[in-house]
Amino acid sequence: MLRAMPASLPVTFAAGADGPWRITRIQPVAGAPMSAAARLAVHEAAPSPEPGWTWHLSGVTSHLRYTAAGERGALAARQPALGRAEATRGALIPLRKSEAWWDLAQDERRAILAETSRHIAIGLDYLPAIARRLVHCREVGGPFDFLTWFEFAPQDEAAFDELLARLRATEEWRHVTRECEVRLEQIPIR
Amino acid sequence: MLRAMPASLPVTFAAGADGPWRITRIQPVAGAPMSAAARLAVHEAAPSPEPGWTWHLSGVTSHLRYTAAGERGALAARQPALGRAEATRGALIPLRKSEAWWDLAQDERRAILAETSRHIAIGLDYLPAIARRLVHCREVGGPFDFLTWFEFAPQDEAAFDELLARLRATEEWRHVTRECEVRLEQIPIR
Repeated sequence: MLRAMPASLPVTFAAGADGPWRITRIQPVAGAPMSAAARLAVHEAAPSPEPGWTWHLSGVTSHLRYTAAGERGALAARQPALGRAEATRGALIPLRKSEAWWDLAQDERRAILAETSRHIAIGLDYLPAIARRLVHCREVGGPFDFLTWFEFAPQDEAAFDELLARLRATEEWRHVTRECEVRLEQIPIR
Repeated sequence: MLRAMPASLPVTFAAGADGPWRITRIQPVAGAPMSAAARLAVHEAAPSPEPGWTWHLSGVTSHLRYTAAGERGALAARQPALGRAEATRGALIPLRKSEAWWDLAQDERRAILAETSRHIAIGLDYLPAIARRLVHCREVGGPFDFLTWFEFAPQDEAAFDELLARLRATEEWRHVTRECEVRLEQIPIR
């Protein structure tokens, strides 16, 4: 059996004065903006706030919510690991979806996400260039439902922009009520 | 659009010296047992532990994970509200499923739960007698994935026992690694 990641790993994104990622831009796409900060750190742990943190968002990795077995096989064959040396660009995109979305039955959400909006197929078009991790936070509270994380090489930044544009043009994205784009550059280790 | 319950309501089950439900039995069905206690209280809130609590389990209500639109319609038409005056018997059944279960793709889990095991159809057979609420806790941590809650009248207790027996005989239940049955009687208000 394929296993993409450990089940229910806690992940905390901490923005503030410290961290290996320089925040190059924080742009509200839908809904309320987020506060500016200089750096971002990613901790595979529950939040343990430090004085230098300006804000933090946390959640857990989880099981697949929509992906079917065949799609999972295609994804697993092509998706890269996090932490590749060449992937010095990143993005954290927190998202919230409407209550009307969450009120839909499972098959209705799957139909919009996978069949109509081709979310899984669009994502496949950008593998293996763009590594990603989905962190769930709806059940742990807070202003977002998902914290989406991406890593890619500088030469793949245009492809990443295209991926975002294609997803934001889908019917699924009509249900996104809050979205912020935090763009990042890894600070070289001296 | 049908709406069964508010999205992501926190729920805490607190066992100890106090509470409107008398614990008549705590029986391990699979895996480790739970500690004995006299009473149970249900709080629609995040846990705020009190000195009298022996143990507590908490989580959140959430969106439908497997139910299709047609099934939701059938359920909504028949499922009773919580808190009916005649429903003076109850049960809290915390469950954990195997890592192999959570590693399955969404369509594989749906196939076992709905098509092979007929979980949703079996549940429908006991409506409107048995009111229920599903509380999710996998994403918030702790020893269980779900806290299942049931309320019914004393004359429906045999039907409830039958419901449990039918579910436990399904293929889905082979993936249940821990299950405890906490049976309850409401204490009459004087």
